[in-house]
Amino acid sequence: MAESRLTGSSGGRGADPDALIGAARDGDPRALARLVSLVEDSSPQLRSIMQAIASATGQAHVVGLTGSPGVGKSTLAGALVRHYRDHDHRIGVLAVDPSSPFTGGALLGDRVRMQEHATDDQVFIRSMATRGHLGGLAQATPQALRILDAVGFDVVLVETVGVGQAEVEIASLADTVLVVVAPGLGDSIQAAKAGILEIADVFAVNKSDRPGSQEVIRDLRTMLAMASYGPSDWKPPLVPIAAATGAGIGDLAAAIDRHRYWLGASGRLLDRRRARTREEVSAIALGQLRQRAGQLPGASRLDELAERVCAGKLDPYSAADELIGG
Amino acid sequence: MAESRLTGSSGGRGADPDALIGAARDGDPRALARLVSLVEDSSPQLRSIMQAIASATGQAHVVGLTGSPGVGKSTLAGALVRHYRDHDHRIGVLAVDPSSPFTGGALLGDRVRMQEHATDDQVFIRSMATRGHLGGLAQATPQALRILDAVGFDVVLVETVGVGQAEVEIASLADTVLVVVAPGLGDSIQAAKAGILEIADVFAVNKSDRPGSQEVIRDLRTMLAMASYGPSDWKPPLVPIAAATGAGIGDLAAAIDRHRYWLGASGRLLDRRRARTREEVSAIALGQLRQRAGQLPGASRLDELAERVCAGKLDPYSAADELIGG
Repeated sequence: MAESRLTGSSGGRGADPDALIGAARDGDPRALARLVSLVEDSSPQLRSIMQAIASATGQAHVVGLTGSPGVGKSTLAGALVRHYRDHDHRIGVLAVDPSSPFTGGALLGDRVRMQEHATDDQVFIRSMATRGHLGGLAQATPQALRILDAVGFDVVLVETVGVGQAEVEIASLADTVLVVVAPGLGDSIQAAKAGILEIADVFAVNKSDRPGSQEVIRDLRTMLAMASYGPSDWKPPLVPIAAATGAGIGDLAAAIDRHRYWLGASGRLLDRRRARTREEVSAIALGQLRQRAGQLPGASRLDELAERVCAGKLDPYSAADELIGG
Repeated sequence: MAESRLTGSSGGRGADPDALIGAARDGDPRALARLVSLVEDSSPQLRSIMQAIASATGQAHVVGLTGSPGVGKSTLAGALVRHYRDHDHRIGVLAVDPSSPFTGGALLGDRVRMQEHATDDQVFIRSMATRGHLGGLAQATPQALRILDAVGFDVVLVETVGVGQAEVEIASLADTVLVVVAPGLGDSIQAAKAGILEIADVFAVNKSDRPGSQEVIRDLRTMLAMASYGPSDWKPPLVPIAAATGAGIGDLAAAIDRHRYWLGASGRLLDRRRARTREEVSAIALGQLRQRAGQLPGASRLDELAERVCAGKLDPYSAADELIGG
């Protein structure tokens, strides 16, 4: 039923959610861009949008793309877009930009690198701004994914900049986590710090035409050999590539596909998606509780309470009690 | 009154909060380590600990230390510890480790680099594990800071690994944000991406004895020149250092002190601390609401709800409604 609402549609320039969804499904890039903006803005319309698309989701392959700054994630994203377009897939890229809450958005850089795809309606590229909200990524990205999925994208890359918490989040979002490494970016302690071994489903060793790439591969092999895999576990393959020239991209896409197949055959795909959905539902529930807390009489008192805590007259727990009327 | 409880104490080996606080104040490193562990574990005892120390806080200078992987943050932290110890300050280092939720903790690396201070009771070094909790840093770090502050540390460095959200958090935690940059770590777009210009109070240009450091300084100067500062704004100084040899560390500490003085004289110190405290109190309140939500009848149904969302039979908003009984 929701399906029929998705196809019959009317233009998509207006703010009517059904019309926007229909237009986005028909390939209107502006309608899709507006839907994703509604997600970023936590629009009240999201509720009806999510209801409308619920039955149309679950088809897209979500590939997380992460790695330290400078490994060439954006270049690789571009190369993968090219590859999937050559194979006639509709592909989306959500670049999760942890940039400053002050500038409040994404920089030109990513977009410039992706410019060759700017006029292709089968490619959707968006730098998502989390606007300084901790956990903003956790709430907005699953919903943007949900929309791209419902309107017919086959593959969605979620690219994160940086290391650390963003990677932990991406591991819970993606079907397949692609970790990009490159020679010349610090020692193995740095790599291990970022926890990449545990979250990677596929390693792309970028800049494999440069000196040092053999060492990177050897180090990763050593670390992987020390990890203990069960007989039915997936063992992350290492794929040497050179994103700038396109070398190895076909092999990389094949490795991603093999992982996708393994996920389905082993039943892990459903496990991952259930876990992702639990997180998503919890985040929404928490956001609603937070909103309710904001409406409590205590909220207007936060300034005064903080003042008393700063002055050493109150401890933060007692202040929190007063805030939520506990 | 709380003050008197802090001084008269008895040993500090037991779990009694008052005794632990007293012992930590007297310089017992194990008592302090236990207190910080109580914070990491979100112990129920925290409430009474925070009550006991409320009136003793507000003295320590909190310095955030951040920058991309490989710029030498840990080496610089070690150099600053040495400097402050030479000037007879009691100094704490909280290294916030965004490492994997799978390994669940900090790696040996940081601690090894800090080993020379391991036997100095006036130095407290701790790699805090956020255990994969998003926002875990937001809740635990202010409380660990509160404890170090109350037991008499003059300076606390909060070191974050990585870029992105952690930096946004540190900007809200620290009195002074020290951003470390170094030559050879990517172009200025990468730097700007991380939003470092907006959060930095002081720039340390590390490895200033290496080629390329003049370019880094020039680029930063250009970017700072484009930013618009009012006549009463603080203009972040650039301090060339070589953390490994200790060169420039005295200048850097002087710049940090100047910023601390400016904060006090301009009234901004209280602004920052009020904002920090608002965040802290909100985080505690939110945690309590979250706990309440976990006790709602709907929580046991999260698995079932996620299953229905995955199957396309329910949208995530309706699932959240059911979860919180809305």
